[in-house]
Amino acid sequence: MKAYSEMTKQELLEEHRQLEEQYKKYRYAALSLDMSRGKPSPAQLDLSMGMMDVMNSQMDMTCEDGADCRNYGVLGGITEAKELLADILEVNPDNVIIFGNSSLNVMFDFISRSYSKGVMGFTPWCKLPKVKFLCVVPGYDRHFKICEYFGIEMINVPMLPTGPDMDMVEKLVSEDDAIKGIWCVPKYSNPTGNSYSDETVRRFARLEPAAPDFRIYWDNAYTVHHLYDHHQDHLIEILAECKRAGNPDLVYKFASTSKISFPGSGIAMCAASLNNLQDIKACLQVQTIGHDKVNQLRHVRFFKDIHGVVEHMRKHADIMRPKFEIVEDILEKELGELNVGTWTKPCGGYFISFDSLPGCAKQIVAYAKKAGVKMTPAGASFPYGIDPEDKNIRIAPSFPGEDEIRSAMNLFTLCVKLVSVEKFLNSFEEDGDKETAAEAPAEG
Amino acid sequence: MKAYSEMTKQELLEEHRQLEEQYKKYRYAALSLDMSRGKPSPAQLDLSMGMMDVMNSQMDMTCEDGADCRNYGVLGGITEAKELLADILEVNPDNVIIFGNSSLNVMFDFISRSYSKGVMGFTPWCKLPKVKFLCVVPGYDRHFKICEYFGIEMINVPMLPTGPDMDMVEKLVSEDDAIKGIWCVPKYSNPTGNSYSDETVRRFARLEPAAPDFRIYWDNAYTVHHLYDHHQDHLIEILAECKRAGNPDLVYKFASTSKISFPGSGIAMCAASLNNLQDIKACLQVQTIGHDKVNQLRHVRFFKDIHGVVEHMRKHADIMRPKFEIVEDILEKELGELNVGTWTKPCGGYFISFDSLPGCAKQIVAYAKKAGVKMTPAGASFPYGIDPEDKNIRIAPSFPGEDEIRSAMNLFTLCVKLVSVEKFLNSFEEDGDKETAAEAPAEG
Repeated sequence: MKAYSEMTKQELLEEHRQLEEQYKKYRYAALSLDMSRGKPSPAQLDLSMGMMDVMNSQMDMTCEDGADCRNYGVLGGITEAKELLADILEVNPDNVIIFGNSSLNVMFDFISRSYSKGVMGFTPWCKLPKVKFLCVVPGYDRHFKICEYFGIEMINVPMLPTGPDMDMVEKLVSEDDAIKGIWCVPKYSNPTGNSYSDETVRRFARLEPAAPDFRIYWDNAYTVHHLYDHHQDHLIEILAECKRAGNPDLVYKFASTSKISFPGSGIAMCAASLNNLQDIKACLQVQTIGHDKVNQLRHVRFFKDIHGVVEHMRKHADIMRPKFEIVEDILEKELGELNVGTWTKPCGGYFISFDSLPGCAKQIVAYAKKAGVKMTPAGASFPYGIDPEDKNIRIAPSFPGEDEIRSAMNLFTLCVKLVSVEKFLNSFEEDGDKETAAEAPAEG
Repeated sequence: MKAYSEMTKQELLEEHRQLEEQYKKYRYAALSLDMSRGKPSPAQLDLSMGMMDVMNSQMDMTCEDGADCRNYGVLGGITEAKELLADILEVNPDNVIIFGNSSLNVMFDFISRSYSKGVMGFTPWCKLPKVKFLCVVPGYDRHFKICEYFGIEMINVPMLPTGPDMDMVEKLVSEDDAIKGIWCVPKYSNPTGNSYSDETVRRFARLEPAAPDFRIYWDNAYTVHHLYDHHQDHLIEILAECKRAGNPDLVYKFASTSKISFPGSGIAMCAASLNNLQDIKACLQVQTIGHDKVNQLRHVRFFKDIHGVVEHMRKHADIMRPKFEIVEDILEKELGELNVGTWTKPCGGYFISFDSLPGCAKQIVAYAKKAGVKMTPAGASFPYGIDPEDKNIRIAPSFPGEDEIRSAMNLFTLCVKLVSVEKFLNSFEEDGDKETAAEAPAEG
């Protein structure tokens, strides 16, 4: 098939007619599919059902250090769970605190604490005239919502194949002491799926921020979430690298078992330097008497150790991999030659990131929605929901079944084609004399 | 036995000699007992072990409304859990939000939210020159720590047999718009164990605070925690009463299952007006994707309904009641005639409150500690840890076994006697001419 940009107006009109006919059929079919969120599928949740059997009423509920898991206390988490989670985080158990069920909640609380009380004795952000955050884009919408909630001004930093644009990061943080943090999903990033290069991690660890209370918010959400056995991304461990670089306090590292065991019933955690942990615990001991230790023990008894986790994640991968491949195959088959979009091919994580022609994303998502397929809202992966080029769409293939993904992606690519053809046709309105759309590419 | 106040100096010196001898024996015995915290005993925790059996790997994990409990979502809690918890809270399920494992954490988050973002659109507290809270004293130390953490000035309001001194509460809140809240444990209060009278609740619901963002923080921690079947305290339900009084938004009501199922692995909840819930959810939806629904379902499957809870609480009472009675018996037997202290006789809750002679509490607790019995630090039940009269000591009989409580209380009453005798002896130093201690009661 010819790329749309090479088509004449007549060819585009004919293509549009055919696409509209196909689209009409989808509307009659009344699909109801959800490709919008990074939710595990029921089959993935079934993998952890054994967790319901590892405890029973006759069982000893004492943890290794002698504490009764069922009672109050043990603020930072039980030892055996710290050891398991430290292995997931690739850090020393002494640097780990275990929280409740949600790492998003932990991150919210960290921003909230910094806002009300400040970081390690520095001025609380609520007492400052302006606080800013760097946001790698496209990125995770819920990170951005936290900043928005606290009135923190967000500055976009583009995500490159190697990670965030570090020239820009270095320049901004060294010049402006109102910049207090940067949101990162360093591994199998949300939504691009690519990982930070070694050089990027090294440069992060060597940042020289103007603000002494600047922190890297390193959301390692997909640390063990590979799709393949033999193509896995490996990152330099940021805590150790910060220490080597003489900046031990520069980073907070977050993760959870939400997409390992159960979303909502997993365990969230943070790793940081001992100085940071002391600061965190000063708040935590006022906030709570302790988190759910029975659930911590349940996780340890089910997974046993990091090998158990790795083995378990292989089973997740066996379910996820074909879904990613269906998405990629359909994108390639339907759009490969048309020159109307690009997409990522991740080796892990939960998302594929699609970039349409500029100015088309909102319309594509709207068309898909009208025909019964819910995509993440266009713009959601940018601060304030504004994608300046209106081109990024996050594809989340985890939840639907394989057949549903096929239907959804066939419709999605149809919508991409339809909107792209319309965009090219519009360009003829602006310049009726040209022969093909490419001669005057329309602006986003 | 003669009251110490009636003794001559000579009699007191002889009594002191005998008490010191007994105390020495305790020090040799090297006890190690903890009467300091409201922790359930292992036998109480065993009552809920059936909760480990109500789920297994073959089980359907769908909730009543069709959501998969194991996955993300359902921000305010699953319907069936809301119904169960609404019955515990004596409110409509529509007025309930379910949170994580700790009601303390919920209360902290409420203060934190009010501090950073304000209550229902009013000025965030962090932007105000001064914020104050009323604290019913003696009260719950962890409430006060939250205020201290956020730099909120605390004003003591005395706890009377009918509840807080409402004349004082009404006057203060109507005059000063810096007063944004009051901490209450209305039922089987911590630590006095008594409950607010109907008139007190009615006056609470009819408060006319100067601050439009004033809220009553109604920590209903011991709502179903009776000791007796036939002597139970019953309170007017505050949410309904506030509505009747035309002040529907005046109160937040908190509770948890920490002392029903497992502390740390229970469910926390809040009930409030729909306006308040909307305000709370605006924050909550940024803070988290949802709380632990598997644990919510686990609670519903174990307790079934409010009758299951009531039945279960009877078993708790059977374990707690004898412990309370041992404490009360020993207090009565050892101190009943000496006129050196008063104490409460609660029908529920977790504590007995002891008032020594003024100026003696710290010394009593120190003596007990030296002989191996840990009491809640004197002053802990007051803001900033300062009991102005240095007389209140919280007794927490739930955790130790019955024999341990006997040992601990025998030592405790011995310490009370010792310190009281020393106080009276000191009064002779100040006035050598008098015949008995009563003639010149020493000042705290």
